[in-house]
Amino acid sequence: MAVKLMGAWPSPFAMRARIALNLKSVDYEYQEEDFCNKSELLLTSNPVYKKVPVLLHDDKPICESMIIVSYIDEVWTDGPSLLPSDPYDRTIARFWAYYVDDKWFPYLIEMAKAKTDEAKKVATEKVLEGLKLLEEAFEKCSKGKPFFNGENIGYLDVAIGSYLGSIRMVELMMGSFKLLNDKTPLLSAWAERFCSSEAVKDVMPEPERLLEFVKAMFAPQAAQ
Amino acid sequence: MAVKLMGAWPSPFAMRARIALNLKSVDYEYQEEDFCNKSELLLTSNPVYKKVPVLLHDDKPICESMIIVSYIDEVWTDGPSLLPSDPYDRTIARFWAYYVDDKWFPYLIEMAKAKTDEAKKVATEKVLEGLKLLEEAFEKCSKGKPFFNGENIGYLDVAIGSYLGSIRMVELMMGSFKLLNDKTPLLSAWAERFCSSEAVKDVMPEPERLLEFVKAMFAPQAAQ
Repeated sequence: MAVKLMGAWPSPFAMRARIALNLKSVDYEYQEEDFCNKSELLLTSNPVYKKVPVLLHDDKPICESMIIVSYIDEVWTDGPSLLPSDPYDRTIARFWAYYVDDKWFPYLIEMAKAKTDEAKKVATEKVLEGLKLLEEAFEKCSKGKPFFNGENIGYLDVAIGSYLGSIRMVELMMGSFKLLNDKTPLLSAWAERFCSSEAVKDVMPEPERLLEFVKAMFAPQAAQ
Repeated sequence: MAVKLMGAWPSPFAMRARIALNLKSVDYEYQEEDFCNKSELLLTSNPVYKKVPVLLHDDKPICESMIIVSYIDEVWTDGPSLLPSDPYDRTIARFWAYYVDDKWFPYLIEMAKAKTDEAKKVATEKVLEGLKLLEEAFEKCSKGKPFFNGENIGYLDVAIGSYLGSIRMVELMMGSFKLLNDKTPLLSAWAERFCSSEAVKDVMPEPERLLEFVKAMFAPQAAQ
């Protein structure tokens, strides 16, 4: 059963697939993609979106990060379950995973890209409100255990945790400002646990390196 | 097991939950919401998005239409399966369901709201390209059977089919122009089958009524 993943180290979405494969102890070949010069295999495997991640399982392509995470959970059933066993708990994990992609991460991007102090202030408030919602969600989902998914990292941990590199990069951009702070104690402690786990630590980008990449990517000359 | 759905007849998203409940022959109480005067129950059940649909199962709220459809599939296992049994086929159903929400429906809205001929032309092309992709997806997913899901309506049928009221409304706005036409023969025939099925026909809005609603909703005086 050949497993290959096309990803890119700065992408939180590609990171999700890598973490899920690591959690399930799946051996896989990894192909690093260059955003500016994508491989033919990537373009033909994901002709609609033309982006990472794409998982190839016996040459069959699977696209979209959380769909890949669900697939990994459903195919490699020997490893720990990524989604809760209770159908209602699954809806909660899926809801917050949807929310971070649909609303929260776009707010973080808005904050990072804001050109004026006023725009940055508005976006920062939305980011912090979102983190407060996630702090409450953590309390409910984890039920006193270390992760959203309970004893082990699961679907929602992967969905939110993949943004921790971006969070730390934005904190770095802002100087001494902390997005995860004493108003989000549970989430702050969870973030430490998540980043230091075996499945995560080697794929989580350093904030300094990520910032350098983002600056180069969005520098005026890069757009020319 | 008390089941209650909060929906609104013009909403394709609320329609998804109703169709899924009908497919599984679940008895449920239906509460019609007014977009301009939402019930307290809706606002407290979906505090993040404050929108329909919300399914209440034994008073526990489930939000987001496709999450609701998955939940219904996982809880009422006596009825026909809405997702394919094969994990790879499930990724394909989930991918196209994601695509129609993420890309295709926003193009349709862009087309309906376009203020200039040029903007309408650009949006129409994107809508038609998307329908061509869905035509090809139908051929691959259905494998010669009547629905994306095979013999019975399933997850992807519900995801795409819920937009048929909007498609017909936009066709009505455009006069004699047909979005589903002889370039999408499989999709056109599928749309007929979908709309005439028992689970769908009573919840699919008439295009004339939908157009009247949309005109009133977006009329300048409504915004004041």
